[in-house]
Amino acid sequence: MTSDFATCTRGQSLDNWNMEHQPLKSWADSAATLVAVAAGRAPADTVLRGGKVVNVHTREVLEGWQVAIAEGRFAYVGPDASHCIGPETEVIELGGRYLIPGLCDGHMHIESGMLTPAEFASAVIPHGTTTMFTDPHEIANVLGLRGVKLMHDEALIQPISIYTQMPSCAPSAPGLETTGYEIGPDDVAEAMTWPGIIGLGEMMNFPGVVHGSQQMLAEIAATQNAGKTVGGHYASPDLGPDFHAYAAGGPADDHEGTCEADAIARVRQGMRSMMRLGSAWYDVETQITAVTEKGLDSRNFILCTDDCHSGTLVNDGHMNRVVRHAIECGCDPLVALQMATINTATHFGLERELGSIAPGRRADLIVTSDLRELPIERVIAHGRTVAEGGEITVTCPHLDWPEDARQTVHLGRELSATDFEIKAPDGVEAVTAKVIGVVENQAPTETLKRKVAVKQGLLEPEGPVCQIALVERHRGTGDVVNALVEGFGYEGNMAMASTVAHDSHHMIVVGTDRVQMALAANRLAEIGGGVTVWKDGEELALVELPIAGLMSDRPAKEVAAKADGMVAAMQACGCTLNNAYMQHSLLALVVIPSLRISDLGLVDVTKFELTELIEETQ
Amino acid sequence: MTSDFATCTRGQSLDNWNMEHQPLKSWADSAATLVAVAAGRAPADTVLRGGKVVNVHTREVLEGWQVAIAEGRFAYVGPDASHCIGPETEVIELGGRYLIPGLCDGHMHIESGMLTPAEFASAVIPHGTTTMFTDPHEIANVLGLRGVKLMHDEALIQPISIYTQMPSCAPSAPGLETTGYEIGPDDVAEAMTWPGIIGLGEMMNFPGVVHGSQQMLAEIAATQNAGKTVGGHYASPDLGPDFHAYAAGGPADDHEGTCEADAIARVRQGMRSMMRLGSAWYDVETQITAVTEKGLDSRNFILCTDDCHSGTLVNDGHMNRVVRHAIECGCDPLVALQMATINTATHFGLERELGSIAPGRRADLIVTSDLRELPIERVIAHGRTVAEGGEITVTCPHLDWPEDARQTVHLGRELSATDFEIKAPDGVEAVTAKVIGVVENQAPTETLKRKVAVKQGLLEPEGPVCQIALVERHRGTGDVVNALVEGFGYEGNMAMASTVAHDSHHMIVVGTDRVQMALAANRLAEIGGGVTVWKDGEELALVELPIAGLMSDRPAKEVAAKADGMVAAMQACGCTLNNAYMQHSLLALVVIPSLRISDLGLVDVTKFELTELIEETQ
Repeated sequence: MTSDFATCTRGQSLDNWNMEHQPLKSWADSAATLVAVAAGRAPADTVLRGGKVVNVHTREVLEGWQVAIAEGRFAYVGPDASHCIGPETEVIELGGRYLIPGLCDGHMHIESGMLTPAEFASAVIPHGTTTMFTDPHEIANVLGLRGVKLMHDEALIQPISIYTQMPSCAPSAPGLETTGYEIGPDDVAEAMTWPGIIGLGEMMNFPGVVHGSQQMLAEIAATQNAGKTVGGHYASPDLGPDFHAYAAGGPADDHEGTCEADAIARVRQGMRSMMRLGSAWYDVETQITAVTEKGLDSRNFILCTDDCHSGTLVNDGHMNRVVRHAIECGCDPLVALQMATINTATHFGLERELGSIAPGRRADLIVTSDLRELPIERVIAHGRTVAEGGEITVTCPHLDWPEDARQTVHLGRELSATDFEIKAPDGVEAVTAKVIGVVENQAPTETLKRKVAVKQGLLEPEGPVCQIALVERHRGTGDVVNALVEGFGYEGNMAMASTVAHDSHHMIVVGTDRVQMALAANRLAEIGGGVTVWKDGEELALVELPIAGLMSDRPAKEVAAKADGMVAAMQACGCTLNNAYMQHSLLALVVIPSLRISDLGLVDVTKFELTELIEETQ
Repeated sequence: MTSDFATCTRGQSLDNWNMEHQPLKSWADSAATLVAVAAGRAPADTVLRGGKVVNVHTREVLEGWQVAIAEGRFAYVGPDASHCIGPETEVIELGGRYLIPGLCDGHMHIESGMLTPAEFASAVIPHGTTTMFTDPHEIANVLGLRGVKLMHDEALIQPISIYTQMPSCAPSAPGLETTGYEIGPDDVAEAMTWPGIIGLGEMMNFPGVVHGSQQMLAEIAATQNAGKTVGGHYASPDLGPDFHAYAAGGPADDHEGTCEADAIARVRQGMRSMMRLGSAWYDVETQITAVTEKGLDSRNFILCTDDCHSGTLVNDGHMNRVVRHAIECGCDPLVALQMATINTATHFGLERELGSIAPGRRADLIVTSDLRELPIERVIAHGRTVAEGGEITVTCPHLDWPEDARQTVHLGRELSATDFEIKAPDGVEAVTAKVIGVVENQAPTETLKRKVAVKQGLLEPEGPVCQIALVERHRGTGDVVNALVEGFGYEGNMAMASTVAHDSHHMIVVGTDRVQMALAANRLAEIGGGVTVWKDGEELALVELPIAGLMSDRPAKEVAAKADGMVAAMQACGCTLNNAYMQHSLLALVVIPSLRISDLGLVDVTKFELTELIEETQ
């Protein structure tokens, strides 16, 4: 693959690819054709007429405007394209419908859908997404720069535009966890030379920036020196000097705002406010009032999803869902469309490449009959019809993922129930232990203190408290860190294991029974990663995620169905928590308070230090 | 100079210079300091407080906001900068006045002021201009790429930001004139590697683009491949397929619009509409209604001057004059300010470098007490106070212009009255000749036909018709092309000569008397170029323009006074035409209809071909 990419890169500029490895020619390389078509000297490949064009530059609907496409780009956009029609030109009659630009997702993680880039693209194309800015920081933790490159490479061969943001923070909490690989300033500088890299992925280490971390500032500098965009992630409600210091460090956007004050604060600092509606993020309604009520200039507001599960993609949509939601929140439809098209393109320095229906740009558009409901009736990307009536009409090519990217679960040995034993100090009958408290619908956990019985020298939690284990899976050390968790509501003899375990993506096993925990862990090692739920010695559900233990290369519908099965299995084990799987997979995310688990031990995230499980003995 | 520039260029990115050859550090290189200041760990160089900050990102006035500056950039912009103040910090009390971003001129030609970059900067800094995007295409015609580089080099050492647009069209009309040097795609590609080049200068050869000229498209491609901005110039009222074809060719902006329909057409094509108020251009009032009345999204509208004479700079202002005028035309003051700050910066990919008062950006700002009248009370550029109360407080360094740039008037020999003789065919008593008709307040000329007497075999025009000569001055060929002109109103025995002679900048001599014409031409050869007016053997006025025969390195006030003297001298010779000097200097501009003169002969610009002076003989 790599050598193919090198030969097809054009100039210093961007990737220009469509499927089957046929590059989409750059505007410069197509200019002679585009000019000839617009002037009427050469026929267009496609003309769309009889509709209305939404112009996101002027914020207008242009009745009767027509569009001519050649070489995958818009050649003519104006009142009458009849001079662009030749005998071979495909003429599409719109019957009064609207043409809107293809939708852009300003920040997202493909891995969150448990799908490879190809299958993610397949799932979102019928929803009208034609451009994504994606930060593969999950795979960066598992496979390092090479994993990022594989994602980048598969992204570049899709029929839509998928730009890669180079992950900035692996590990997310240096010293508190061991990732499969680490990312440093040299990796960032190298990635900036790849054709599909658009900037730096979300700079999550905001305390690092605020305190002047040399490494974080060096990553930002490498990105700025390459003329690319630095993604932000300031996940704190503190809008005082720390926030201002973060802005002074260089991040150009932020999607972690959750209220109107957050959105306003960001745009006032010259950052762009990315407002997200993901599967579990609901940050549009609370922030868009900065535009709809406070009347701030809307150009610096961008819509994004951040994280979408496959089920959301299958059942609810993607960026069309976000735009529709923004409109429901009171946003003018044309303004909402700008927030998912030209605003995004401008942010990433791509306003002359995509994000509008205008000459020279990639011919990415949607045919729709209603600007509020946004039914996605036809999608054209790079000049080709890629979906009609909700069905994809093209193939999204898969990378030939190398074997070692499919075999990333290295336990070192077969685990047994004894690996999950938590030994008490000699002679005690009970202990008071710290317990990770899961709180429904909240990312932060609580630090609970619970009395736990000791039997035969081992902690034997009961009732709401069950065991959690972090199983090292990158280097085959055989290490297992054991601790306690409360809040899932599990009953009986069960266990659930997942190799999706943000951000270091070891394996998290939660269970009421050590035998089941061993069964679940060994099962994931056997199949190369995923999620499995066990009860009484039987596997109730399995989601195979063979690529890096994070993604499936099966279609979204299939993965979503298996994920549904997983949720049903968790419920069969007594769990009634909303978004229980997400809670499970976030329990090792040692940057969100307050108590988490890592391969190094139990982590007090209020103090960013390791802490002891047992507080007292009785 | 050249080696200094090379060593001081940072990363792949932009020039980062201020005066005395001290580079302004990039944001990346200053980030550690900026973060420390914003966080309160290090003191700012300067804090401004007690005022209101105009935020052009949100389009708000933020009462009481304070600004801290370090290393020439904004470190903190927020409600309270007291934590940024140390014992050495300069604290400026604003007394309730406004801070607005320094103003940007989106497209202009320094040579039009008859001033070098240093003296132009000196003249406009007190008016609050802190950034200019300048296309040195006049000097490109005289000195080629080397002349462009000299302008670029002097631009980079100024205390404000002067970006260079690489001239695209020298000659402006290939085949119809001979310039000193030509510019081609290789020159463009080379210039794109210089630190101060921001893009391609106005693509004036719009028929070339529309007809797919390989050379024009190659220049555009070289610019696009370098990720830079292609300037446009579509000087035609035709908004049909030709206009669309021009847009498809790649120009990203256009400043040639003169009416609302022009402005709307451009932004609908995804181009930015640059609206100009120059010394003789009045295109804001007629176009800004696209925003103020039609309600189009204002983000794609930019204010610029294009051409300002030194007198305008001395007496009326610069971009402050344009913004004030836009407000007088009904534009909201904050929108008008956006059009001269962030809109411009965004257009050139510089929105994170300048154009707003926000962290990390170049600390360029204006203190003013009124947002409509815009008195420019203090100007700060790159963190330093550069003007106060209308007076410049810094030095604008001069390049040591090489001798050959100061000796560009090569006539090859001393001219005499006989060089200006127009011979009639043998034996005729009179002829009907084509005469260039100057029309007051219009750039196009008329093609007049006038009967001219013949005496002793020579045409002897009388009354309103006088002689015009194009004197070759680049290669010392000694060639003189003679023709006829009407409309200046000259009387008596006079001549006026100028080495400013758009675009090829040979020498244009207009006169009623061949002896005076020779005196004037020889005078300019003697002093190295400029403008001179002669009557009855005496020099009435002289404007020395020793640099390339186009610019003076004397202060604007001095040049403006001499230019006033020149106008007075023209009036003393009977000329009452408005803007008579501009008319004179444009008579060789063989891209504007209908009849012009070039070193190759008389040019019919309606047909883009050479034409005969004499139509009929009597």
